[in-house]
Amino acid sequence: MAAIGLFSRTLRGSVSSIGEDALIRLIRRWLGRASPRAPAGIGDDCAVLLPARRRELLTVDSVVHGIHIDDRIPPRAAGSKLFRRNLSDIAAMGGRPRAAVIALALDGRVSRAWLEEFYRGLARESRLWRVPVVGGDVAHLPGSFVATLALTGEAAGRVLTRAGSRARDWIYVTGALGRSLPTGHHYLFKPRLAEGAWLARRSEVRAMIDVSDGLAKDLAALTPRGASPAIYAAALPRRAGATAREALCDGEDYELAFSVAPGARRTAFEKAWRRAFPRTRLTCLGRFVRAGAVPPEAIALGNFRGYEHLR
Amino acid sequence: MAAIGLFSRTLRGSVSSIGEDALIRLIRRWLGRASPRAPAGIGDDCAVLLPARRRELLTVDSVVHGIHIDDRIPPRAAGSKLFRRNLSDIAAMGGRPRAAVIALALDGRVSRAWLEEFYRGLARESRLWRVPVVGGDVAHLPGSFVATLALTGEAAGRVLTRAGSRARDWIYVTGALGRSLPTGHHYLFKPRLAEGAWLARRSEVRAMIDVSDGLAKDLAALTPRGASPAIYAAALPRRAGATAREALCDGEDYELAFSVAPGARRTAFEKAWRRAFPRTRLTCLGRFVRAGAVPPEAIALGNFRGYEHLR
Repeated sequence: MAAIGLFSRTLRGSVSSIGEDALIRLIRRWLGRASPRAPAGIGDDCAVLLPARRRELLTVDSVVHGIHIDDRIPPRAAGSKLFRRNLSDIAAMGGRPRAAVIALALDGRVSRAWLEEFYRGLARESRLWRVPVVGGDVAHLPGSFVATLALTGEAAGRVLTRAGSRARDWIYVTGALGRSLPTGHHYLFKPRLAEGAWLARRSEVRAMIDVSDGLAKDLAALTPRGASPAIYAAALPRRAGATAREALCDGEDYELAFSVAPGARRTAFEKAWRRAFPRTRLTCLGRFVRAGAVPPEAIALGNFRGYEHLR
Repeated sequence: MAAIGLFSRTLRGSVSSIGEDALIRLIRRWLGRASPRAPAGIGDDCAVLLPARRRELLTVDSVVHGIHIDDRIPPRAAGSKLFRRNLSDIAAMGGRPRAAVIALALDGRVSRAWLEEFYRGLARESRLWRVPVVGGDVAHLPGSFVATLALTGEAAGRVLTRAGSRARDWIYVTGALGRSLPTGHHYLFKPRLAEGAWLARRSEVRAMIDVSDGLAKDLAALTPRGASPAIYAAALPRRAGATAREALCDGEDYELAFSVAPGARRTAFEKAWRRAFPRTRLTCLGRFVRAGAVPPEAIALGNFRGYEHLR
């Protein structure tokens, strides 16, 4: 158990004892160098950024206390997780992150100490990935805590979308899958920004997605019309202790799945990968085949469902 | 009372009966032309935008059910309000809005009919102001509803920040102030985008802010160091029935307050304004004076406080 719970047991330790203006001053202090001066950062009606030189990326993602984070994970890790979830989306397009804004909706009883740690986690990610936190909003939400981060990015070169795969393409995935929650991977993971940008520069890579709702679900979004993925249980890179079902269905892997043209020199590609990322596992899971031509040994993906957000 | 409440009384009428993928398909249908195809819109890890030609703006704002919206206002107006709050921030920098992403955090019991109306309100604003909704996120939030919109914009010319006023500058405000909640102005208002862009092109205008937390509070952010606002109760443009205190302290006016250089030809400036915006009231409230030199007839602003978000 983390030392600090979301809600303070004393009024003095709570956010409501501070007042909004003082809270925003504290947030700027907690963010430190992660928070540039207005108008490049917090403190005006909007943040003002220099224009991007290439195509721009925009994404948004939230963490809800009790759902994506809870008092079993340190609040600093909770802040990190919010930032990394969004960074993973930029990674999945092969982009570079640029700037973030953060909207909080929270109960006045939220612990000031918890919130400080949460922001220090955001600040750490901001420094690590060089993405300033340029603005935000604070709103009152009785009984709960929701933090939403919107992130802008820039194409590092080509933008790798989910579309573009064809039948016969090879299917690859980075890292290992499954058991993200029990192992703490869901907040300890490193977004695959360097890997995503590298893959966007490789012409044999056709399409990419981040695996966040379970491979079985996310692979469907990468599958071209008229084709099916033929992937094999033996090839699934599983996190320690994960069953094949867990590797297919658990959410929050934050790995990259991508397709590679059938004519690619795969040995050279994999060798170049190992040179660039000696510590990041890369697995060829199989390939897309014509719908109806999935071999009987392949996983019947229709039997596996990904993570459902609204049960 | 609006016909549709946030929570459905039947399982069939609730969001949880739909499932996430189907909900996202519905959201895209509800948004209609407001939602471009991926990768320019919803459906990939990020939205891909063309690079901005000028400096960029980024802002984020939320609405919480029970705080900023409730079952007394139509859900379509609630969606409009979320969009307009953000547009008002872009207006306050003199910018043009470009693209929006929307994160929902909601209970599974939220009514599907309510949510459809909410999105149709967002779609209406999107069409009206030509700002596509390019992405989003849906998360589970037990017992509540929070919608967060992040908006990017582009400078229409000069960016008008809150900083830049000097002692002796004139202080102006658009529209009328106070009683935003009882009159419904808080969701019926029109963001001052055209006015903001016009003001950014006028060289006599030095600094600008949107009045959203009450003039008494927001004017402080426009006041230069070593100066104080000398404004007069008789000059305050009040919404029908509003007292001077309400005009100073009520939140959610969504008007523009700005400063004008002391050497400006004010008659010509005001005449040009009336030509450009014949139906938008413009009021000179007074001017900034040296701190300590506020005349006794002026409002003692220290006695008035704006809206506090975390009571």
